Amino acid sequence: MSIQIPRGTQDILPGEVEKWQYIENKARELCGKFQYNEIRTPIFEHTELFTRGVGDTTDIVQKEMYTFTDRGDRSLTLRPEGTASTVRSFVEHKMYGSPNQPVKLFYMGPMFRYERPQAGRFRQFVQFGVEALGSKDPAIDAEVISLAMSIYHSMGLKKLKLIINSLGDKESRAAHRAALMEHFTPRIGEFCKDCQSRLQKNPMRILDCKQDRDHELMKSAPSIIDYLNAESKEYFAKVQKYLTDLHIPFTVDPNLVRGLDYYNHTAFEIMSDAEGFGAITTLCGGGRYNGLTEEIGGPETPGIGFAFSIERFIAALNAEGIELPVNKGIDCYLVSLGEDAKDYTVVLLQKLRLAGFSAERDYLERKIKAQMKAADRLNAKYVAILGDEELNNKVINVKHMESGEQKQIDLESFVEKFQELNQ
Amino acid sequence: MSIQIPRGTQDILPGEVEKWQYIENKARELCGKFQYNEIRTPIFEHTELFTRGVGDTTDIVQKEMYTFTDRGDRSLTLRPEGTASTVRSFVEHKMYGSPNQPVKLFYMGPMFRYERPQAGRFRQFVQFGVEALGSKDPAIDAEVISLAMSIYHSMGLKKLKLIINSLGDKESRAAHRAALMEHFTPRIGEFCKDCQSRLQKNPMRILDCKQDRDHELMKSAPSIIDYLNAESKEYFAKVQKYLTDLHIPFTVDPNLVRGLDYYNHTAFEIMSDAEGFGAITTLCGGGRYNGLTEEIGGPETPGIGFAFSIERFIAALNAEGIELPVNKGIDCYLVSLGEDAKDYTVVLLQKLRLAGFSAERDYLERKIKAQMKAADRLNAKYVAILGDEELNNKVINVKHMESGEQKQIDLESFVEKFQELNQ
Repeated sequence: MSIQIPRGTQDILPGEVEKWQYIENKARELCGKFQYNEIRTPIFEHTELFTRGVGDTTDIVQKEMYTFTDRGDRSLTLRPEGTASTVRSFVEHKMYGSPNQPVKLFYMGPMFRYERPQAGRFRQFVQFGVEALGSKDPAIDAEVISLAMSIYHSMGLKKLKLIINSLGDKESRAAHRAALMEHFTPRIGEFCKDCQSRLQKNPMRILDCKQDRDHELMKSAPSIIDYLNAESKEYFAKVQKYLTDLHIPFTVDPNLVRGLDYYNHTAFEIMSDAEGFGAITTLCGGGRYNGLTEEIGGPETPGIGFAFSIERFIAALNAEGIELPVNKGIDCYLVSLGEDAKDYTVVLLQKLRLAGFSAERDYLERKIKAQMKAADRLNAKYVAILGDEELNNKVINVKHMESGEQKQIDLESFVEKFQELNQ
Repeated sequence: MSIQIPRGTQDILPGEVEKWQYIENKARELCGKFQYNEIRTPIFEHTELFTRGVGDTTDIVQKEMYTFTDRGDRSLTLRPEGTASTVRSFVEHKMYGSPNQPVKLFYMGPMFRYERPQAGRFRQFVQFGVEALGSKDPAIDAEVISLAMSIYHSMGLKKLKLIINSLGDKESRAAHRAALMEHFTPRIGEFCKDCQSRLQKNPMRILDCKQDRDHELMKSAPSIIDYLNAESKEYFAKVQKYLTDLHIPFTVDPNLVRGLDYYNHTAFEIMSDAEGFGAITTLCGGGRYNGLTEEIGGPETPGIGFAFSIERFIAALNAEGIELPVNKGIDCYLVSLGEDAKDYTVVLLQKLRLAGFSAERDYLERKIKAQMKAADRLNAKYVAILGDEELNNKVINVKHMESGEQKQIDLESFVEKFQELNQ
């Protein structure tokens, strides 16, 4: 009996994987221009990192983590997101002490959440994200947002909507928190159990509740925007000014919140506006988290970042009908006839490849006609045909597949001649 | 208190990660030339895949797997190697039915083994590997070996030793197995418990035993080479002929064995010959496994592949003192003086970056001197200096850091002029 792939995961196969490579390369390249450097952290971390860094009141920590005990009796968890690991590494390697500040990092790799599998949701998905740690200049908020938008634009996405909000600083959030508690407390009995426990711990998360979202108190809930103090307002205004200077259109949405205590100031999401994209239109989420580094055991450090999943990115490309310019076809297929000629293609093939050409030959003892068909299927630009007779005469026939033009060239100088043909 | 990285794993940080990117890109590029396409399989699989595909008598399966139960009560295991997953995907997606045969795949990604951490051994390590499924042409064995060698050579490694062996076909192996049992049975009591249980299950694995390796019966044990039948000998001769034709030096080592039943014919290893490399000199291991696909539930399919860890690859580079040509330094650092000028660099920075330059500015309200220092640390090729006065006059001063040459250029056409400077 055959063994199947675990539920909620997928194989990415040739034909599809080229898109992933393209997106990753493009994102890496842009990160280079923007001076974000790659960091790679382990697939699993001590579970405590996520209960602290993601927050133990969140759905992720409560319901969706892949947690297990290793052979040394440690509680480990497959990372559900990338920020906590990045900040753990920032603290562990004392990057806050580096003279190059802020520390600008990006990551790319698989993340894991035990969710009900559905269209566009996987238990293993690939997240790309960036974190800028060590600056509270609103220009870095704008830079981070602009990097996300630049990545989307660089691959041709157009139907995008950027929404932003400010969660203010500690003081502003505390004022808002008090207002929320006052607002919800009298009628908290009408809300779900989760919301009842959120009331004390983190009333802002009530606004995020999927179950109670239609309750009349939701619409009339106090908005963070009305509780921003002067400094927070100024910060938010500056971020907006920079985005305007950069010609990045945005909408302010006071309902865009982040539940965890250490989120503050800028929060943003990029959504797809494309028709037929489906119910989940958020492509990318990000925001400022000035308290997270302390939570994880480091010194107080401002930070901001975003993350998006490559799966969702590809769905957005598909929704807009964008074909990425991924390379198709090979440079040369070597067709051979006769035992000696066939043996000789082993060497020719190697020479072509090491000269930088993608090249292939037959490995199934196929007849010449079937070899030509194989060349066609691989979309070969040229076919080079070698029989035992040609081998004796030290020549080889090269055919340009599109034009049908054929040439006999010297076998000894085949690779140089082939290079000339391709100039 | 701060949280640390799990034991036996590592962060790969900027400064080091560029090597990884370089190696991965180079390997990917060469795979393209050789017509191996990337496949990405999940980080975890059903545990059964590895007990069947890696073999439940192996150390990997018995002692080293990260196995856990998910919230749906499935036994999952973090993949300890890449071949079983690749073959699982080959079977599940019926790639054996594709007209393009053999199916040539490569993979690259983290693998997990719970081993005692030591120099060069990690519990999470990154493996690169290829698999060619569907051909029993000895030319594909030579191709696979040559691809491995080409990857090593392409990055400047020279001190390499290729050893090869043949395990023969089923018939040859059965004859060898009988001879091994006859050889060891009379004195099996002198061997370790593992070897005693190997005697019946898989006597060839006794030859691999680390504990009993100095027992006198080891040296005198019957060699597979003497049990190869005519077909297996011919196959092996052909592989050797192709390697010779390709100018790839090799040594035949009859002691190079693979324990599992479905390994056959070609086995090979690439070792580092570099001084001071340390005790573990094997960089890469590979071989033919004509029975694995059936074991995993697919049709009988010949296959051959290899794998190496990037960690070990980098250790080999270091042992040979090879510096990879990784890009260092940025194109331009924008120094500003005054609030308006500083704000304006937000826009300039974006323009430079989207024109393809790596560029940076200050995010810490540093004085001009500290900004110049930051530019130095980032190895900036140019520094562009903008004060409020320059901003009013719509000019900007650009300084080439190496020559000290300075130029005042028009602010409006800064990016175009900067492009000209860099041509």
